[in-house]
Formats: sequence, structure tokens, C-alpha cells
Amino acid sequence: METEHLLDERIGQKQVDRVLDGFFAAAKERAERISSSYLSLWETLEKSTVGGKRLRPQIVLAAYTQLGGTDLEAAARVGAAFELLHTALIVHDDVIDLDFVRRGQDNVSGVYRRMAETAGEPAEVARHRGLSVGIIAGDLALTGAFRMLDSVTTDPGTRELLAGILDEAVFASAGGELIDVDFSFSPGAPPVTEILDMERLKTAVYSFEAPLRAGAVLAGAGADAVAALGRFGRDTGIAYQVVDDLLGVFGNESATGKSSMGDLREGKRTVLIAYAAQTPCWAELSGLIGRPDMCPGDADRAREILVDCGAQDYAQDLAAQYASSARSHLASSDVPAGLAAALDDIVSSSVNRGR
Amino acid sequence: METEHLLDERIGQKQVDRVLDGFFAAAKERAERISSSYLSLWETLEKSTVGGKRLRPQIVLAAYTQLGGTDLEAAARVGAAFELLHTALIVHDDVIDLDFVRRGQDNVSGVYRRMAETAGEPAEVARHRGLSVGIIAGDLALTGAFRMLDSVTTDPGTRELLAGILDEAVFASAGGELIDVDFSFSPGAPPVTEILDMERLKTAVYSFEAPLRAGAVLAGAGADAVAALGRFGRDTGIAYQVVDDLLGVFGNESATGKSSMGDLREGKRTVLIAYAAQTPCWAELSGLIGRPDMCPGDADRAREILVDCGAQDYAQDLAAQYASSARSHLASSDVPAGLAAALDDIVSSSVNRGR
Repeated sequence: METEHLLDERIGQKQVDRVLDGFFAAAKERAERISSSYLSLWETLEKSTVGGKRLRPQIVLAAYTQLGGTDLEAAARVGAAFELLHTALIVHDDVIDLDFVRRGQDNVSGVYRRMAETAGEPAEVARHRGLSVGIIAGDLALTGAFRMLDSVTTDPGTRELLAGILDEAVFASAGGELIDVDFSFSPGAPPVTEILDMERLKTAVYSFEAPLRAGAVLAGAGADAVAALGRFGRDTGIAYQVVDDLLGVFGNESATGKSSMGDLREGKRTVLIAYAAQTPCWAELSGLIGRPDMCPGDADRAREILVDCGAQDYAQDLAAQYASSARSHLASSDVPAGLAAALDDIVSSSVNRGR
Repeated sequence: METEHLLDERIGQKQVDRVLDGFFAAAKERAERISSSYLSLWETLEKSTVGGKRLRPQIVLAAYTQLGGTDLEAAARVGAAFELLHTALIVHDDVIDLDFVRRGQDNVSGVYRRMAETAGEPAEVARHRGLSVGIIAGDLALTGAFRMLDSVTTDPGTRELLAGILDEAVFASAGGELIDVDFSFSPGAPPVTEILDMERLKTAVYSFEAPLRAGAVLAGAGADAVAALGRFGRDTGIAYQVVDDLLGVFGNESATGKSSMGDLREGKRTVLIAYAAQTPCWAELSGLIGRPDMCPGDADRAREILVDCGAQDYAQDLAAQYASSARSHLASSDVPAGLAAALDDIVSSSVNRGR
């Protein structure tokens, strides 16, 4: 039985790719009728969705198939809706963070900034153009997420539940993004609990909690099972984010695909920084981070401090605690053994990635 | 009968206000559970929807009631969805245009920029904070539009048609916004036809064509009536945009609520500018406009040139032509006389506003 589910999941993942291919093909056809530059924007947006792990559709499919769902096309469409939501949120998050690179490649704003630079525009103008197109592209992906959900063949009651879950995901993520923007303007560092809350809202809800609940709802699971998966998703998502904070400073650039200086240079408020801010080493650390002109030597020193003051150990323990708490929810009698095993794998890969 | 429809429209407009009040009340309650700053963001977003004419809901209601629809709550919800879409698009458009004021008041980004300035942040930082919050707020309004449509009680077939119309509206608007962004980076001015095309996509589709079609679809009108209304909406929307271009330069600030120097200072590519660019006066005009340091004397000279070279007359004629073409679609036998009269009023007020 278990093998059958895994096979279904793999078939489902191919289906997600096909659904997204179809979505973009239709959009590109429509866009081309408007202008060639609109077609290019859709091509750029599509490229930005390729190369990722498509983690959220995977989670939807795992929950759905392991809870007995058999309509892989419907599950793939729900998964694709979450992938489009993810695309929208990261494109807009990158605009807010003034990031032009993701996974070592130009992101949507980066592509358009580079095009403007190549056309001879001054740096500031090219930057603004990149950000402007990023805003438009994110709006299209967000609209696509809701339209994708409309295309799921299911009864109206289930569709309304799914739309509610997607809405809650956006609502939480926007709230978390706002707190994150607020942090970047506060002097000092907020307490660890506030950082965790922000990370849960901004990323964990839409990446773990919501896709799990959506997969379960689509499979017709009972309210208790949906709630248990939601709790599991929440804790896994927090563990994932804490690991993200660790990788952002100590990660291997070639494995994570992102600069291990970015977070430090930006002075990003992470669990590591929040912990360090409560220790005497903050005096030195706060002078090193958050400087656009940070040199590799300063970054090395900042890493040393984060190890010495115990921030790295603290964050590693915290991730392990949340992972363990996540696993405890799998013991619920509402979670079938096969699903528990599949989710256990998701926790492990979330916590051990980049190693 | 006609009076009854007008009464229905007025009741419907109150219903739109109630629906939007309910939407924001529920969102604020949810937001408050997350953080007080998230509550403030929703309050700011709500304020930004008040004070406008709520033109798009009006159009939905006119089409719906005049075509025999009687479920005012459903029509109000469709209207509210378009109002939320409008909010999302103008909030993001203002971010792209780096505008912090709308209708003489701080817009969402303006409110947050001012808060950051008051808190002592440097101008550049405060500006970025305002723009960041604007991106988040627009995403929430866009999500709200799709959720609002989900709440319309109607059969699944009609709901799917309505969702398709809303999707087309976003698709067109994003395409128009992209062309507009492209224009702002092109030297010289594009031809008038391209300006009209951009304005149609960016604003006319979602403001006129789509609300009319949505109201008609909800009323169960036949495909021919829906198509005739779509054509009417397209031409009215273009006339409206050309008048917007005129008001942006020649309008009375106290009537339009926007600076009559803004478009000139920005060097915005409008029908006026596109026309002037084909005339010998462009040599002088192009040196005056598009300068952040433009003084009132330069603006007066630019207006004189736009009158002398015939751009003002040309734009006025163009608006009248589109208004006349719009009215010609009302002669279709698919458009009831009462609806034709109501729409005729909409054309007149679109073309004569700000006078």
C-alpha cells in the first residue's frame, strides 16, 4: 500500500509540472496577443518557478494520497496553486528586500534590471525598472494561484474550504512580511519569540501548515486529522525557518545557492541575531553586521562570535525541538501510519538540508 | 420601471458600502489577533477605499439591475470585488510611480513613509518603508477581490464566468502597466495609438468593460448583450482615460484632487504628449517636461505649447469620438432602453468630469 502511495505521489508531481506548464502556456498565448514584452514577462515568471523543489505541491500530494485521495489531477492543481502563491510571495518579498538574485540567478527583478542596464540606463533607473516589473509579475502569480484553485474539480463546499485555506495563507504571510518590515526599522533586535512568530506567519503557514491542511481537506479527511496536520505543519515550518536562519550564515553557498554573507550584510533579524543580542558579544557583533560594505573578514568574525556566544548551538537546539514537537503530532490516531512516515521524511529533510 | 431600477441601484450602492464594511471589519478582527501594526495596515487600506466614487460597483449595479437582476446582495458583492481590485491596482501603481499622494491625501505608501519620517528615519529609508508596505497592502486587496467573488451566491457556471472576467481584468491591467513602465524608459514619445492601447489595457478594461460584462453575466444576459456592453465599456473607458490625460494637465486641482503639474513633471506619456511629439513644438516641450525640478512657470509654458500645437484640441476631439462610438453600441437591440439611458449618463459624466 505504502509503495502505491509513493508511486501516486511521484505521478502527482509530474502532474503538477504538467498543470503548471499548461497554465503558463495558456498565459503566454494570451500575453503574446497583447505584446511581445508581455510574453517575455510571462516567460521570465515561468522560469522563476523552475528549478525549485516544488516543496509545497509535494506536501499537498503527500497528505492527499496518504489520506486515501485518488484524484491526482485535482491534488496537482491544488499543489500548483500553492506553487504559484509561493512564486508571488517570493517575487514580492525580493522587491521589498531589494534582492535581485535568487538561487544564484537573476530573479524577475534582476532580469529586468539587467536588461535596463544593458540598454544603457543609469543604475538607479534600471533598479527601479526591475522592481516595478517584479511588482507586476507577483500580482500575476497571485492571481494565478486563485484561478488555479478555481480549476480544481471538487464539490463547492470543499472548494470553499480550500479557498479559505489559501486566503489564510496570504493573510498570515502578509502579516509576517509586515512584522519583518517593521523589524528592519527597529534599533536593536527583537526577542527570539517575536522572530519565531514572524517566521511562522511569513513562511511556515503558507509553506507547510496550509498545503498539508489543503491536501487533507481535498482528501475528505475529518476535522481532527486536518487540525493535527496543521499543528504538525506549523512546527515543521518553524523548524525549517530556524534552519534557514542557520544556513543563511553558516550554510555552504554551493549547496544553499545563496550567499552566506547576505543575511549578515543586511543585518537580517534572525533567531541567531536575536539570541546574540541578549549576550555581551552584541556590542561587537552589532557593529559588524548590517553594513552594505561588509568585507569577508568581518563576516568571518561575525560567524565566530555567533558560535562563541552560543547562538549557533541555541538555534540548532531550537530547530531540533520544533522538529521533535512536529513529530509528536504524528502520533495522533488521526494520522495514518503511511502519512506519518512520509511526513517524518519531510521533517528530516527540512532540518537536515544544506548539510 | 426605470425609476424602480434607479432605486435598486441606489439601494445596491448602500449594499456595496455594507459589504465592504463587513469585509474590512472581518479582516481587522483577524489582523488584530496577529498584531496591532497589522490592524493599522488594514485600517489604512480601508481608508484608502473611502472617498472615491465607487464607480466600478456603480457600473456593475447599473448593468445588473437594468438587465432585470434582482439579487442586489450578489450584485453588491461583485461590485465590491471590483472595488477591491481597483484598490489593489492603484496601490501598486502608486508604488511603481513612486507616488505617495492620491486625491490630495497620503496614500497607503504615503502614510507609512510619513510614519517612518516622524520616527526619525532618513528620507530614503522612510520612502522604502512606505513602498514596501504598499506592496503588502496591494496583495491583500487583490486577494480580497478574489475572495469577495467567492462569496457571491450564484450557480457555479456563473461564478466561473465572473472569475474569468476578473482574471481577464487583472491580466489586461498588468499588461498595460508593463507597457506603461516600458514607455517611461523609451526616449521620445510612442505614437498615440500605442498610448491608447496602453490606457485601454491598464485601466479601461478593469474599470468599464469588465464591470459591465460582470453585471450582465450575473443578470443572466445573453452573450450578444454581454459583448455589446463589453464594446461600449471599452470605448467609454478609452474616452475616460483621454479625459484623464487632459485633466492631468489642464484640470482644476481642487476639482480633480490631483496636482496639475504631476503629469508634466513626471513627463508622463499621455495622448497630449504623444500628439505634441509629432509637431515642431516638441523641441521646446521635451526640454521642459519630465524634470523633477520643474517650476510652475515651466508648467504654464508647457500648457501653452500643448494648446498652441493643437494637442489639447486633438485630445478633446478624440475623447468625443470615443464617447460617440461608445454610444453607438447602445443602439444594439440587445441593450434595453433603460440600460442605454443609464449608460449614456455614465459616458457623459466620464467625459465631462472635472469641468
